[in-house]
Amino acid sequence: MVYPKSLNNLINSLKILPGVGEKTAERIALAMLNFDKEKLESFATAIIGVKNKIKPCPICHNLTEQNICDICSNENRRKDIICVVEDVKNIFLFEKNSLFNGQYHVLGGLISPIDGTDPDDINIKTLFDRVNKGDIKEVIIAIKPSLEEEATSLYISKKLENSGVTVSKIAQGVPMGADMEYIDAMTLENALSDRKKIS
Amino acid sequence: MVYPKSLNNLINSLKILPGVGEKTAERIALAMLNFDKEKLESFATAIIGVKNKIKPCPICHNLTEQNICDICSNENRRKDIICVVEDVKNIFLFEKNSLFNGQYHVLGGLISPIDGTDPDDINIKTLFDRVNKGDIKEVIIAIKPSLEEEATSLYISKKLENSGVTVSKIAQGVPMGADMEYIDAMTLENALSDRKKIS
Repeated sequence: MVYPKSLNNLINSLKILPGVGEKTAERIALAMLNFDKEKLESFATAIIGVKNKIKPCPICHNLTEQNICDICSNENRRKDIICVVEDVKNIFLFEKNSLFNGQYHVLGGLISPIDGTDPDDINIKTLFDRVNKGDIKEVIIAIKPSLEEEATSLYISKKLENSGVTVSKIAQGVPMGADMEYIDAMTLENALSDRKKIS
Repeated sequence: MVYPKSLNNLINSLKILPGVGEKTAERIALAMLNFDKEKLESFATAIIGVKNKIKPCPICHNLTEQNICDICSNENRRKDIICVVEDVKNIFLFEKNSLFNGQYHVLGGLISPIDGTDPDDINIKTLFDRVNKGDIKEVIIAIKPSLEEEATSLYISKKLENSGVTVSKIAQGVPMGADMEYIDAMTLENALSDRKKIS
């Protein structure tokens, strides 16, 4: 005996979600049986809607339902500074904490000689196009430190070497509240060499 | 800045699922953006289908798309023994391991003096109706040990005291407070064969 066919369909659909295995899918599917019809219908509509309405912003590759995303079209933001992130999720992190008031650029991946990810595989050409159009004073690379991040940062800084644009990356160091003994040696080394004079 | 509206809708829909919080919903929603359209459409269809097609079996309260569930309508199963479970999920556990070849009865809850759950609040009257129709030789209570299980078992055994039907419960091989779905098949099998006559 297995579950009724339509319940099995739902369990199988749920299993394609990241982090959802057999047991979790089963638990979620059975819980969904108890939801009222309106809730399930709006869920189904939300799933369809997300694919039909959302597309990448042609300027920064952020997600948007408009032609150009809310950030690129916002006249109150600085136009001369671009924060380069790996993923759209990272924009949300900066924005929800109001940490940055310039433009973004979503690479959608990092250069990785090991995985064979070339600059052509990520949204990097459009970054140089934006910089070459002028008006940009600084490009901040805000990507978590890794070998791929270093390869990507190096590529960007080389490409913009003679553009007159400052290329920087977010400081590497020990995060607030972290236990020193769990910080890797590379980070500690960088935190030490990037030390800040406080008096 | 927040996510585009349709992405927010999806995140909010995902958050109603059990065990899915803000971060997980965000991660799942962003992953779903990369699914192809057919996959998302079949997901949405599965969600709608589950509510429209599935209903409880009028005999045993298992879930079914038919008038009577696959187990109740299966002529090759023993008709004289009923395994009483708390939840439809538990049927699946026994069935997938082929541990039991009789009938089931899904209570959909347990008697709890503390929570104020009375016998009328669960599918227990239909169990007695089935037993009173005759043909039933044994009722096995297969519910994880707890105070509510004891109250429920006691109620069932009292009610069937003079019916001539054997009432048993699975052996306490299942540890107190453990979730049925995390018990291995061997333990379940032993618990089933070591069932204890209680009236």
